[in-house]
Amino acid sequence: MSLVRVHNFAVSLDGFGTGEGQSFEAPFGHAGHRLHDWFFPTRSFRAMQGQPGGSTGIDDAFAAQWGPGIGAEIMGRNKFGYQRGPWEDEEWQGWWGDNPPFHTPVVVLTHHVRPPLEMEGGTTFHFLDASPAEALEMARQLAGDQDVRIGGGPSTVRQFLDADLIDQMHLVVVPIVLGRGERLWESLEDVERRFTVEAVSAPSGVTHLTFTRTSTE
Amino acid sequence: MSLVRVHNFAVSLDGFGTGEGQSFEAPFGHAGHRLHDWFFPTRSFRAMQGQPGGSTGIDDAFAAQWGPGIGAEIMGRNKFGYQRGPWEDEEWQGWWGDNPPFHTPVVVLTHHVRPPLEMEGGTTFHFLDASPAEALEMARQLAGDQDVRIGGGPSTVRQFLDADLIDQMHLVVVPIVLGRGERLWESLEDVERRFTVEAVSAPSGVTHLTFTRTSTE
Repeated sequence: MSLVRVHNFAVSLDGFGTGEGQSFEAPFGHAGHRLHDWFFPTRSFRAMQGQPGGSTGIDDAFAAQWGPGIGAEIMGRNKFGYQRGPWEDEEWQGWWGDNPPFHTPVVVLTHHVRPPLEMEGGTTFHFLDASPAEALEMARQLAGDQDVRIGGGPSTVRQFLDADLIDQMHLVVVPIVLGRGERLWESLEDVERRFTVEAVSAPSGVTHLTFTRTSTE
Repeated sequence: MSLVRVHNFAVSLDGFGTGEGQSFEAPFGHAGHRLHDWFFPTRSFRAMQGQPGGSTGIDDAFAAQWGPGIGAEIMGRNKFGYQRGPWEDEEWQGWWGDNPPFHTPVVVLTHHVRPPLEMEGGTTFHFLDASPAEALEMARQLAGDQDVRIGGGPSTVRQFLDADLIDQMHLVVVPIVLGRGERLWESLEDVERRFTVEAVSAPSGVTHLTFTRTSTE
């Protein structure tokens, strides 16, 4: 069976996976870039942007696991864009331009279904109103025998954790206090008991945590 | 000027410094021992209990900083005991027995003042109804020219952070999700901007964070 994986998911010390007040100008709200400053210098991030070079240390060792073996992503509607409710602007094709970095099918969870959106480079957004388990079934079909990545945001990761559908999760604890935004951990008391958790700090100041579901070790 | 320091203060991944439901049987509520499992094996903890031996690795390197140079502690009333409101049982002398591990004056913040309590081994509990700044002034007098430790619980550490009275803070991020209890970080948005923060993970699974106030580096 293919695995369900989370990668490069950053949270603040107070557990927020995104700030308050998402908008076109501020995809992560008042958090700005601060949850991802560790990520931008890495070779993996730069390669996603079509740029050469970048760091190849501890942060990149984790960042580089994002792509290989992944056949599809599932993301929440708020990762796809800043609009809420019915789509007023169907021209919106995500934050990532004509050639998004996913290069696989992407299932976007939304109560407001719209036709699939085929982008350059192999990314197709499929809009689906479904439970986590149903979305995973669709993503697995789209992924062939490859793994499925849960791309975020916080409520999407939380829903898949709640449903015990995640096999591997890489979190990045960033030593900032956001104070407000969307919490990852709400409703997840004792979730770590289902996982083996390891931690390593990087010179950038962040701490990488790996959660490996005990039954899949 | 003497420093104001926090040591060995453990928080869960979701930011709780203690669990819900403190009682005589459960000083940390439903968290039980889980926030402090990293601490018990250390030589420093065992020495506090009058026991020989113990680990002398990374966790102990941090734990051992708790005592040296400290001339007084300030703690919240809920660290001292489980009673709330007026003291119904003045026989209560804290969780620590006849010879508490502090061996210095200890200022206990409470709205219900009672006479000082002199214990064996140099610990005297002084009960004070005061602001953080006033309590610190008293603790500094009691400490001579030595440092003052802010001993917790979460709301006490938070109040001293809010008042910008803390120079050094050692936190221990324990990879558990408590879900409920008392949060450290409430009201502390951007608090890290006043500090230089460093992180190191230990084989026990916890991550030690040091906060050094920028102006005191």
